[in-house]
Amino acid sequence: MLKLIACALNFSQGKDKSVIEKIVAAAQDVRVLDVASDPDHNRTVLTFLGEPGAVGRAALAISAKAVELIDLRRHRGGHPRMGAVDVIPFVPIRGVSMEECVSLAQEVGRRIGAEMAVPVYLYEAAATVPQRRDLAQVRRGEFEGLAQKMQDPAWRPDYGPALPHPTAGAVAVGARPYLVAFNVNLGTDRVETAKEIARSIRERDGGLPHVKALGIKLAERDLVQVSINLVDPYSTPLWQVFEAVKVQAARLGVSVVSSEIVGLVPLGVLAESARHYLQLEGFQPDQILETHLLEE
Amino acid sequence: MLKLIACALNFSQGKDKSVIEKIVAAAQDVRVLDVASDPDHNRTVLTFLGEPGAVGRAALAISAKAVELIDLRRHRGGHPRMGAVDVIPFVPIRGVSMEECVSLAQEVGRRIGAEMAVPVYLYEAAATVPQRRDLAQVRRGEFEGLAQKMQDPAWRPDYGPALPHPTAGAVAVGARPYLVAFNVNLGTDRVETAKEIARSIRERDGGLPHVKALGIKLAERDLVQVSINLVDPYSTPLWQVFEAVKVQAARLGVSVVSSEIVGLVPLGVLAESARHYLQLEGFQPDQILETHLLEE
Repeated sequence: MLKLIACALNFSQGKDKSVIEKIVAAAQDVRVLDVASDPDHNRTVLTFLGEPGAVGRAALAISAKAVELIDLRRHRGGHPRMGAVDVIPFVPIRGVSMEECVSLAQEVGRRIGAEMAVPVYLYEAAATVPQRRDLAQVRRGEFEGLAQKMQDPAWRPDYGPALPHPTAGAVAVGARPYLVAFNVNLGTDRVETAKEIARSIRERDGGLPHVKALGIKLAERDLVQVSINLVDPYSTPLWQVFEAVKVQAARLGVSVVSSEIVGLVPLGVLAESARHYLQLEGFQPDQILETHLLEE
Repeated sequence: MLKLIACALNFSQGKDKSVIEKIVAAAQDVRVLDVASDPDHNRTVLTFLGEPGAVGRAALAISAKAVELIDLRRHRGGHPRMGAVDVIPFVPIRGVSMEECVSLAQEVGRRIGAEMAVPVYLYEAAATVPQRRDLAQVRRGEFEGLAQKMQDPAWRPDYGPALPHPTAGAVAVGARPYLVAFNVNLGTDRVETAKEIARSIRERDGGLPHVKALGIKLAERDLVQVSINLVDPYSTPLWQVFEAVKVQAARLGVSVVSSEIVGLVPLGVLAESARHYLQLEGFQPDQILETHLLEE
């Protein structure tokens, strides 16, 4: 089976199209799925997919180009950042374990430290100590606070020099599950109802593990929505979250009008929902005809 | 979007491995999904997938090799057949309409007639007259009855000579939807219950269009099953058939234990079930991450 890893690499340039294009052009031998540049954040999320080796080489080439072209001393933007190449998460998609993504994060991190003289922090599933699992903790203080933060032995990097790179700062390299953005629209205009359902299903308030949720009002569409992030859709599947919303909506006497998946969803996540609702037994992903075109 | 057509070509050799291998080896530039040889039927179903042009070229190359290596005058087997290459159905899988498969059937049929001197009957969606839609009608009389049958002007072939090929007979070339084999297992050992549910859902007895169904007992597994063929799963989707079985089972007081998909299923068929049950709105197949690896 063809092994597939995705990478949603974040670099700190979201305005200068020529710089963005040069950095994106370094992504060779992988499939670029999305280039999302935000001028206010002054940041680009470059999502690409490929075989593990190709994804690792692309991440290194993109990082080298970002380190070459971005000077964080002159960077302003609305999104927290500590590096020219800021975050490199590796995400298992097909035929790959989380452990393999952790190994890839270690290998890429080691080479960024050694070859680009940029300090590297391993985060999420690749973290070497618990307080580095959370990206927000790793990035706290941002580029401007990095020199001081790194004086603390607790923030010695996993790879690379013990001081920030003068123009490129530091980078967080990690491994995490695929994040699915899933919204459920309700047959009411009372945002309080959406907020109550969100509270009842999200992990933070004792709900389903690996689920984040907010109740929001979409003025333009005249509806209220439970806006959900499934941060580990293989542990807490889509169908389970949807059913939990339906149960809570019924309890509150409102209807579920529709749902939507924002952006991309791995085939395995969707197939698991079909498997559940159709009560399929013994179903294998390679029974999906098109997967045979993905073979080597 | 990459266009994909499948072809489940049937040729009349199921015993002689060296002949089967030579014929299968003619399938170039397509993905061979399955080679199912049945010695009792003395017949092989060769399923392959690819872009329309490549599938057409492969069908021609395989047919030429089968015409060269198979002599139907000496062929014995349990399955009805009229040709060395017996049936060539083209099946739309992705980004392709039924009309494009009909065009491909016409082009391949025309070339088989002209280049191999084998008479060709277009069938199912490619049929030129209603009585040729049904493959069983086209094949009635088989190879042995072909010379006489072709004297009837109603059975003049669509392409090729007005007489059977001396060793290769005639071939049916057509276009049809993908057939999904789907079984539902019931929580009872009474086969009559499975038969009653099968009757209530199948087209033949006034049930769902494009659905064939039988109630059977699986002695080895100690269960009864509604064994279903969805002959047009894009018109009558999988979820609709499953829900119909559940309604009938509930009416008869038996439980639905599980279901199973036999063999391969197109991604679009499975995604449509996920879409239905999750109430997804605006969902597009290209939101499935892996489909981007299928692009040209």
